[in-house]
Amino acid sequence: MFLKEPKIVHVSEVKPEQVPNAEKTNIRVLFSPKETPTYAMRLFEIDVGGHIPAHKHPWEHEIFALEGKIKVKVDDKYFTLEPKTAIYIPPCSTHEYWNIGNVKAKFICTIPNKPTTIC
Amino acid sequence: MFLKEPKIVHVSEVKPEQVPNAEKTNIRVLFSPKETPTYAMRLFEIDVGGHIPAHKHPWEHEIFALEGKIKVKVDDKYFTLEPKTAIYIPPCSTHEYWNIGNVKAKFICTIPNKPTTIC
Repeated sequence: MFLKEPKIVHVSEVKPEQVPNAEKTNIRVLFSPKETPTYAMRLFEIDVGGHIPAHKHPWEHEIFALEGKIKVKVDDKYFTLEPKTAIYIPPCSTHEYWNIGNVKAKFICTIPNKPTTIC
Repeated sequence: MFLKEPKIVHVSEVKPEQVPNAEKTNIRVLFSPKETPTYAMRLFEIDVGGHIPAHKHPWEHEIFALEGKIKVKVDDKYFTLEPKTAIYIPPCSTHEYWNIGNVKAKFICTIPNKPTTIC
């Protein structure tokens, strides 16, 4: 089941948690899979020099960059995320992130509640 | 089917379109239902004094406010969206938006590709 009432939250009200296996990276879960019918919304924060190592899964991401400068590798392609840039990362692609700027990088990362395909 | 390759886009690269039945409101579709497996991502911009009238549908919204100040009515409750505030609007609730600030208001609005429930 999912929330039947509206939920409003400012990012400052959500406790940041360290992302396992990543360096200098926190996640704040704004809307979790348990709360939502279809997809979750999270805020990621990567400190200067931080890194999320390569990984893959059978679902997509839709990301919206808010602050800072991030390099993203998707399979063999590199992209740069600056504020107000959105990136769609398809299911089953290997992806990796680096903060390549000199300030904390922040982005919204949405993710479906269930796998989208089979890799 | 959906995009099998990554897509990156800056909001400035997406043409704004006027939202039908709304006042002083544009939408920029970053990732459309035709491109994505599960949900779409759009940027809404409401000019000063703009308004999106009350409506409802059998799917949720997950919204992240970027700029400006918006009043949102969900059924009989009022909320204020300021930057870095997220709101989940449940399926089948009646919702309405006003720009109550003195600058253009901008927010990311995500929406599932299919109805989530029956109202």
